[in-house]
Amino acid sequence: MTTTAPVLLAGEWRPSRGAGSFHADNPATGEPLADLYPISNWADCDAALQAASSAASALRTTPRDQIARFLSRFAERLEERKVELVDRALLETALARTPRLADVELPRTTNQLRQAAAAADEGSWALPTIDTKLNIRSWFEPMGPVAVFGPNNFPFAFNAVSGGDFAAAIASGNPVIAKAHPLHPGTTRLLAEEAHAAVQDSGLPVATVQLLYHMEPDSGLRLVSDKRIGATAFTGSRAGGLALKSAADGAGKPIDLEMSSVNPVFVLPGALAERGQKVAEEFVSSSLLGGGQFCTNPGLVLLFAGSAAEQFVATVKEKFESANAAQLFSSAVARSLVDSVTSWRAAGAEMVTGEGPVTAAGYRCANTLLRTTGDRFLAAPEKLQREAFGAAALVVVVSDVRQASDVIAHLEGSLTGCVYSDSQGNDDALYAVLAPVLQQRVGRLLNDRMPTGVAVSSAMHHGGPYPATGHPGFTAVGIPASLRRFGALRCYDNVRPARLPDALGDRNPNGRMWRLVDGRFTQADA
Amino acid sequence: MTTTAPVLLAGEWRPSRGAGSFHADNPATGEPLADLYPISNWADCDAALQAASSAASALRTTPRDQIARFLSRFAERLEERKVELVDRALLETALARTPRLADVELPRTTNQLRQAAAAADEGSWALPTIDTKLNIRSWFEPMGPVAVFGPNNFPFAFNAVSGGDFAAAIASGNPVIAKAHPLHPGTTRLLAEEAHAAVQDSGLPVATVQLLYHMEPDSGLRLVSDKRIGATAFTGSRAGGLALKSAADGAGKPIDLEMSSVNPVFVLPGALAERGQKVAEEFVSSSLLGGGQFCTNPGLVLLFAGSAAEQFVATVKEKFESANAAQLFSSAVARSLVDSVTSWRAAGAEMVTGEGPVTAAGYRCANTLLRTTGDRFLAAPEKLQREAFGAAALVVVVSDVRQASDVIAHLEGSLTGCVYSDSQGNDDALYAVLAPVLQQRVGRLLNDRMPTGVAVSSAMHHGGPYPATGHPGFTAVGIPASLRRFGALRCYDNVRPARLPDALGDRNPNGRMWRLVDGRFTQADA
Repeated sequence: MTTTAPVLLAGEWRPSRGAGSFHADNPATGEPLADLYPISNWADCDAALQAASSAASALRTTPRDQIARFLSRFAERLEERKVELVDRALLETALARTPRLADVELPRTTNQLRQAAAAADEGSWALPTIDTKLNIRSWFEPMGPVAVFGPNNFPFAFNAVSGGDFAAAIASGNPVIAKAHPLHPGTTRLLAEEAHAAVQDSGLPVATVQLLYHMEPDSGLRLVSDKRIGATAFTGSRAGGLALKSAADGAGKPIDLEMSSVNPVFVLPGALAERGQKVAEEFVSSSLLGGGQFCTNPGLVLLFAGSAAEQFVATVKEKFESANAAQLFSSAVARSLVDSVTSWRAAGAEMVTGEGPVTAAGYRCANTLLRTTGDRFLAAPEKLQREAFGAAALVVVVSDVRQASDVIAHLEGSLTGCVYSDSQGNDDALYAVLAPVLQQRVGRLLNDRMPTGVAVSSAMHHGGPYPATGHPGFTAVGIPASLRRFGALRCYDNVRPARLPDALGDRNPNGRMWRLVDGRFTQADA
Repeated sequence: MTTTAPVLLAGEWRPSRGAGSFHADNPATGEPLADLYPISNWADCDAALQAASSAASALRTTPRDQIARFLSRFAERLEERKVELVDRALLETALARTPRLADVELPRTTNQLRQAAAAADEGSWALPTIDTKLNIRSWFEPMGPVAVFGPNNFPFAFNAVSGGDFAAAIASGNPVIAKAHPLHPGTTRLLAEEAHAAVQDSGLPVATVQLLYHMEPDSGLRLVSDKRIGATAFTGSRAGGLALKSAADGAGKPIDLEMSSVNPVFVLPGALAERGQKVAEEFVSSSLLGGGQFCTNPGLVLLFAGSAAEQFVATVKEKFESANAAQLFSSAVARSLVDSVTSWRAAGAEMVTGEGPVTAAGYRCANTLLRTTGDRFLAAPEKLQREAFGAAALVVVVSDVRQASDVIAHLEGSLTGCVYSDSQGNDDALYAVLAPVLQQRVGRLLNDRMPTGVAVSSAMHHGGPYPATGHPGFTAVGIPASLRRFGALRCYDNVRPARLPDALGDRNPNGRMWRLVDGRFTQADA
């Protein structure tokens, strides 16, 4: 008999108090994997909250460099265990070993952790602000325990116990209650083992990192709205995100959400004429990356009607057909994708290529392309923007600028929007009309580049208007801004010098922290 | 027959399409004032949203200095019309002409507008961030039309058409749909006349400022959740705020709320011994300011049991009794205050002084002080924190540190928390135990100072944990931070130089804008 894996609570690996258990499948074969993991109930969540509250108090007085050391040490440990991590993630996700898991995603993850470490150590993310005349000082302090719900599509880089939200929550001084994605529990367990060991290595409070694999839905709603929670970060489906949002909102608890996004790509006529073939190839690479299971997957392509558009569609069709069928994470993902495509067809889209699940082992789906006209899109804009997670895209062929503008104006909020234009300026007038409309509907506007890459840059914005996220002012990627999602503004008015946090004293505590002193950013003393 | 005042929609003073009307009263006499104002329906809101959408588009390309000129010109115009403004506000609020209205609140209002003008012109509030290596650039751009719901207690400084939220929304590039508080419609009309004239003087889009006086509750809920709205700012009662929050949250629309707050004040034993009389006097001044109708009114005083605490209570009692009865804004405010005091008594608090409404003309209430013990408070912490808007305070006498800490731990989120301690260090050990607990429950921690003053400082935080506000990361006062409430993060990834907003180009557009370039804040070119 297989035993059920323990959860990580209050610094100990202990049996879950929940009754149920689950197992992951190998998506490449469709066969169940042997290990059993627990489905937590409220007793587990309550224990996690209790321990996290104490950890949060202790972390408030933990030196910045100690938090930084944890993050760096964790990154080192992940590199030391790389082979095992990649093997396990491969088994649970069927993502490519190389380059994806070993050469791209794991290095990205450790890079994020190290950037977060540097930000935690420097302290500028908290925007320390000092008014010397009035002796008023403020900055962002930790909000309290952060519940992180990880998505299915990045077993390392967005994992609840190692990814971007985790790194940002810890770097801003908060303990994390990680909720694994149940499609890769084994990977998450290994990551949590290293996180826990790094907590011990660096002497942080033992409950700084806790892990639950899965939970009853009611317990999740209760967790995000509990008095002891500081904030929640969720990456996943719209339905799941909105359910949690409603619970958190009702309790006045901040929740940062990254939900579905169609990520429109507009290829203007000059660009089509100049380099249509090349753009089509870029689109195919971006679209099929990771089986299309990216938050920034380009799901909608806008083209002006004409022979160049037909050529573009033909090229994509050919390349979709000659590429391997998309390897998806689960039967549920495959089923949902087929449902969405069916619903697009019912709303007037025509199939260009792709015919649902492929008869092979595992969860595979044909690379799918549909097309429709601007008129049809405008007749059913909501249905034709239904979330289709996986390798499926819809081409909308518009008749003229006015219709193009109208289609864009009917787009829901997305993380990204791309515009390809020609290099000679022939598309500039069109760009000037369309880009401002597009920009109001996206968080990140790209030129001549596909959206799938999300660099961990200080200027990155991985967010956007609802329903891509829950608030357009926050980003899930990009340091220092992503840390501020988990910061509560706190002000010290006439507080005596010895009682101030070091970051708000007259002396710059590390000589590197940027502070807004009497209206000027400086690294000098106040 | 009195005609109903027009609303300001799309740059014109025109009749409301709503059917109802209302009038304000003179709180000093309780007599109705002559002018009639309309209660708007959805048709008015819809027209406002439509016009505001166009204004929002135009404002996106309006130069920063033009927006700044509007704010400065508006401030000048308010000063030019000062006498009439103060007269009208006096009539509608019964607040003191001097110092309050003429010498404090109006100058504060014009100062806020000028600080907002400077911030709009400089542009640093938007945190422009440039990664030159990856050519990714981001900053905060306007969210879109902001609905501002003004409170009853500051006819100028928090008025929907001239106050802090208004200034912040405009300075961040957004048009405002102002919803007056129905207790001072005439003042608001005068302010809006000057705002509208300043819009014309400075050539901003005509619908940059619109005004409705009152609206059917359903229309308000619809307004804050409409697709065309960018965000909402509300200052007022908890019930009103939570109703709007629920509507906005459900539509994924940002809403910034400033609701009720008890603002606890802890006077430690050393401070009581050293200067109890002086602190009691400071408390009385702060508590009775504006009839106690301040968001930052100190509603709860914590004292350690003993003769010094008894002396403190006796002093406050005496001063409450010798001061004029509180002049309140309306019969509803007076009624609600009496209800709250009744409910505190039912929950175990004893009356020290104050016996409900005073038999005199207008809406006057006795200055009211109650007391209770830590034990009783802990038996009914929610009931004893019931909102009591007006000159009423509750003293909680605690028996020891443990109980003090426990009481603080049961406090709801407040805007402020004050700790008075002695100057010789005798209270330091107590401070070290209690302040960290208090701080988690307040936005602004003060030492040796009452909370009523809210300086317009870059470091000010007028916000705090729920339910004082809806999100602990935002402040309603303090520039530049208050502007970011109305900013949506937007990113330009590989966007061609000529297409970038000027603030994100390599060149610093005004040489004064602080930008985070490759991790360093600078006013230089990138």
